[in-house]
Amino acid sequence: MKIHGDLMSGNCYKLKLLCNLLQIEHEWVHVDIMREQTRTPSFLQLNPNAKVPLLELDDGRTLSESNAILNYLAIGSDLLPQDSFALAKVQQWQFFEQYSHEPYIAVARFIACYLGLPAERRAEYHAKQPGGHRALRVMEQQLEHTEYLVHSGFSVADISLYAYTHVAPDGGFELTEYPAIRAWLDRVAALPGYQPMPASP
Amino acid sequence: MKIHGDLMSGNCYKLKLLCNLLQIEHEWVHVDIMREQTRTPSFLQLNPNAKVPLLELDDGRTLSESNAILNYLAIGSDLLPQDSFALAKVQQWQFFEQYSHEPYIAVARFIACYLGLPAERRAEYHAKQPGGHRALRVMEQQLEHTEYLVHSGFSVADISLYAYTHVAPDGGFELTEYPAIRAWLDRVAALPGYQPMPASP
Repeated sequence: MKIHGDLMSGNCYKLKLLCNLLQIEHEWVHVDIMREQTRTPSFLQLNPNAKVPLLELDDGRTLSESNAILNYLAIGSDLLPQDSFALAKVQQWQFFEQYSHEPYIAVARFIACYLGLPAERRAEYHAKQPGGHRALRVMEQQLEHTEYLVHSGFSVADISLYAYTHVAPDGGFELTEYPAIRAWLDRVAALPGYQPMPASP
Repeated sequence: MKIHGDLMSGNCYKLKLLCNLLQIEHEWVHVDIMREQTRTPSFLQLNPNAKVPLLELDDGRTLSESNAILNYLAIGSDLLPQDSFALAKVQQWQFFEQYSHEPYIAVARFIACYLGLPAERRAEYHAKQPGGHRALRVMEQQLEHTEYLVHSGFSVADISLYAYTHVAPDGGFELTEYPAIRAWLDRVAALPGYQPMPASP
């Protein structure tokens, strides 16, 4: 089993963290986002949507979208709830992550950390701030009531949201106003098998 | 069971279509997006993320995010594959929809159809066009090879993508170049129990 990814991407880091927590053996194939290696003809054969991470099974079948891969790899583990409503809640948080969280927090971080906040993208960076804080407030509200995002306990939903939340300050989102989020980040980082994300430049 | 939604939203229409196809009884509670009824204190109690659709079960539990609700309501039906890889592919397409399709096609449609393409959002409308066509090309490539998005047959993934794809021309995305998508749209519209989306203004 191969995972194609770039660890500067939180979406890719989600899978690295899951594999470490569940001790899933895999071959990591580095695909350099900054050098646009997701747009080469050979990569487009694997994923026409030109994105990492990408799971490539030994029989050649492929699966894209970080959260779909997480859920597939977590089958049979405690990280994917058996109860159908808890499982629906996992997906709720994952869709929230992709629509209401990542496009603000991850994009602001990318502009600031990886592009060096160039003048032509400064307006976009600032425009991302209210949406990012909106997402953090929604998470904070949940984490004031439950230890992990879904009531049933630690799940892949936490991995999905942990990835970009723990590096949110890189995008200008200070977490001082979110004590429940900070306590949750500490709980995740204390899990056996936890692996940190490589430092940003 | 109540579904809170506004049928001008494709995300809400997904659930209406599913309930019709599977004959799921429900009470539809209209929430007017244009009048910002998702931001009232009583609605924020139900969904702190201020979005429709929202599922409210008879015991008061709530579930948000259209695709998470679809998957929950489709449990036990033919629309949710039993095979774990097919199920992962369903989710792959749903995450693709929320990240790579909806933010372009649905937003361009909203600006054009519901806001009347005002001068101050014209640049944004035009900026949405390449991303929307990128998403349509990814779908076209799949639908050249399989009748439905996932190899196992018609599934909730098709409902997720049908919602905004069939009204893509409202957002300026003509479908003439996508014959496989057009044939797929016709297949979906011919399903027993199919219900069209209300016409846009």
